[in-house]
Amino acid sequence: MPIITLTTDFGTRDGYVGAMKGVIAREAPAAAIVDIAHEIPRHDITHGAWVLASATREFPPGTIHVAVVDPGVGGARAEVVARIGDQLYVGPDNGLFALLPPASEAFSIAAPGFRRADASATFHGRDVFAVAAARLASGEGPERAGPATQLAGRLPWDASGAGRGHVVHVDHFGNLISDLSPGAARRIRFAGRELAIARTYEAVAVGEPLAYVGSAGTIEIAVRGGRADDAFAATRGMPVELL
Amino acid sequence: MPIITLTTDFGTRDGYVGAMKGVIAREAPAAAIVDIAHEIPRHDITHGAWVLASATREFPPGTIHVAVVDPGVGGARAEVVARIGDQLYVGPDNGLFALLPPASEAFSIAAPGFRRADASATFHGRDVFAVAAARLASGEGPERAGPATQLAGRLPWDASGAGRGHVVHVDHFGNLISDLSPGAARRIRFAGRELAIARTYEAVAVGEPLAYVGSAGTIEIAVRGGRADDAFAATRGMPVELL
Amino acid sequence: MPIITLTTDFGTRDGYVGAMKGVIAREAPAAAIVDIAHEIPRHDITHGAWVLASATREFPPGTIHVAVVDPGVGGARAEVVARIGDQLYVGPDNGLFALLPPASEAFSIAAPGFRRADASATFHGRDVFAVAAARLASGEGPERAGPATQLAGRLPWDASGAGRGHVVHVDHFGNLISDLSPGAARRIRFAGRELAIARTYEAVAVGEPLAYVGSAGTIEIAVRGGRADDAFAATRGMPVELL
Repeated sequence: MPIITLTTDFGTRDGYVGAMKGVIAREAPAAAIVDIAHEIPRHDITHGAWVLASATREFPPGTIHVAVVDPGVGGARAEVVARIGDQLYVGPDNGLFALLPPASEAFSIAAPGFRRADASATFHGRDVFAVAAARLASGEGPERAGPATQLAGRLPWDASGAGRGHVVHVDHFGNLISDLSPGAARRIRFAGRELAIARTYEAVAVGEPLAYVGSAGTIEIAVRGGRADDAFAATRGMPVELL
Repeated sequence: MPIITLTTDFGTRDGYVGAMKGVIAREAPAAAIVDIAHEIPRHDITHGAWVLASATREFPPGTIHVAVVDPGVGGARAEVVARIGDQLYVGPDNGLFALLPPASEAFSIAAPGFRRADASATFHGRDVFAVAAARLASGEGPERAGPATQLAGRLPWDASGAGRGHVVHVDHFGNLISDLSPGAARRIRFAGRELAIARTYEAVAVGEPLAYVGSAGTIEIAVRGGRADDAFAATRGMPVELL
Repeated sequence: MPIITLTTDFGTRDGYVGAMKGVIAREAPAAAIVDIAHEIPRHDITHGAWVLASATREFPPGTIHVAVVDPGVGGARAEVVARIGDQLYVGPDNGLFALLPPASEAFSIAAPGFRRADASATFHGRDVFAVAAARLASGEGPERAGPATQLAGRLPWDASGAGRGHVVHVDHFGNLISDLSPGAARRIRFAGRELAIARTYEAVAVGEPLAYVGSAGTIEIAVRGGRADDAFAATRGMPVELL
């Protein structure tokens, strides 16, 4: 049974996600639809990119991931299907796929059947991306979507140097997730403070901050029983350094 | 595989939605359960009606849509199964189905097996509507639910005249969705202001308002990179006119 | 088709729930994944315990319920599989299962295959509980998870005496749910006030409070058209008495 996952900033109080599911159920009745997340902050491409990077790698080969965080819908950014590792991705080429490994191939969504002929200019989730995902789930290869292309979307931060990184995500718990691999380091510097790299939250007293190697394999910063985003007035992009 | 969709104001922090899914899984194990939306604002029937109207028409024929926004649960409003187009709807007859096309048939849910004999007075989602949906998914016709009836639920606004309409929905992005078909018009009047009907958000500068034909085929009003609900202090029911 | 349900405090804006679903889809491709609730208030074990108690009993025999509200992840609390009634539960033994009937058997999750060999210290949802659930869904008995154990997790309130109980849950609507069985009582006392036990919300005027027997079979307190949590400044743990 092919799997189609959905990751959007559409929220869970409108019909947008339901409309996408309806299209998929109609066009690819054998597909299993799996919600990843729909409360991506509105138009926050970087947040969506992080969610895709952390969740989609766990899925079985051949899973089709539809991602729609698309402030430029109807404008210049391309609509694409990309093969990345052993998974397929469908969405706008605006940086949403920039935290994944490089795509081995990518195609513009232009072919009849991969999009509605009368696609609206404002809801490509329903009229383009759900339709393309259904075609992929029905066994069509991504190269059938349209002409080959290269992913062009980028995110607004610099590559991190050795031993230096940034906060790339602030999660639901207020934990700060960096792109910094720990290597052999025992301590980090963050927001002018030195923190030991602990193994579990219980290594520090309630209310105290700690660093640890998180579930993404990178350095994270938390406050035991509290919120690191509040404690450090922290936002995405703040630097983190190994000591 | 029959599909049962769920649209409620139950939120996603309680067990209510899960209890409905449990009943369906037990009574109709072959059915696929699809979430449409559970963050309908509490008791907001009009909001729920819009979500049903925008999402459910995309589903395959025979889909069973369960909708529960039910401030009068246990009181006088009827519990119904309705056939509308090629889809089936199950829920309270309180206006939730008033933005859909007219029902071709409707039935009160009264028959044994279509509701729990000991149904609670406060949770018909679990004790009536999930049970009825499971019966429909098991192949029973809607006429088996109970006596034929007519949908009586209405929503509190007037039919719009030619060239005049109202805001019928304020979405997650703050966009204002009207019930006004654009015809050949090029401009609208809203909140004392004239707006050109653009094709995409990028037709105006960031921070500027625009009108466009939205994914429902009607006039919508947005602010590029912002929120039209805030910019116009807009609420449902405000008039929109073609110029 | 085996069913695996998910109940977490992970929210719906991160990749955590998606990562769990990916693991399950990969390790137990035949399982149907059902969301119960992901907006359990952060680290609120009691809230999660209530949701499990109210929703999971509706599911068919053999359903596998994964619950993750786990402030002590990586610390001393055990990871367990438990058989309770005709259902299976997987999660941390921290009180999450304390509002369910007693477990007939429970096992520590220690066996190879029931957890990742390189499980992170901070995301047992993905690395332990999803893996164990997939094994159960693949037909392995819970006794294969590891050594037999007893559930030790407790919740911080006293057993209620005859005719006396507590608010055990404040729901999405602001309704107050107690653990108090009504027996033959006609009235209750709550927050210094006497309330008649009504059958439906419509028994009182809009804005007035009422008591009724809720969908869990226990006394609940609501305000018609309003919120009882606000009206009574009510929180979990407040006493409720039969009169």
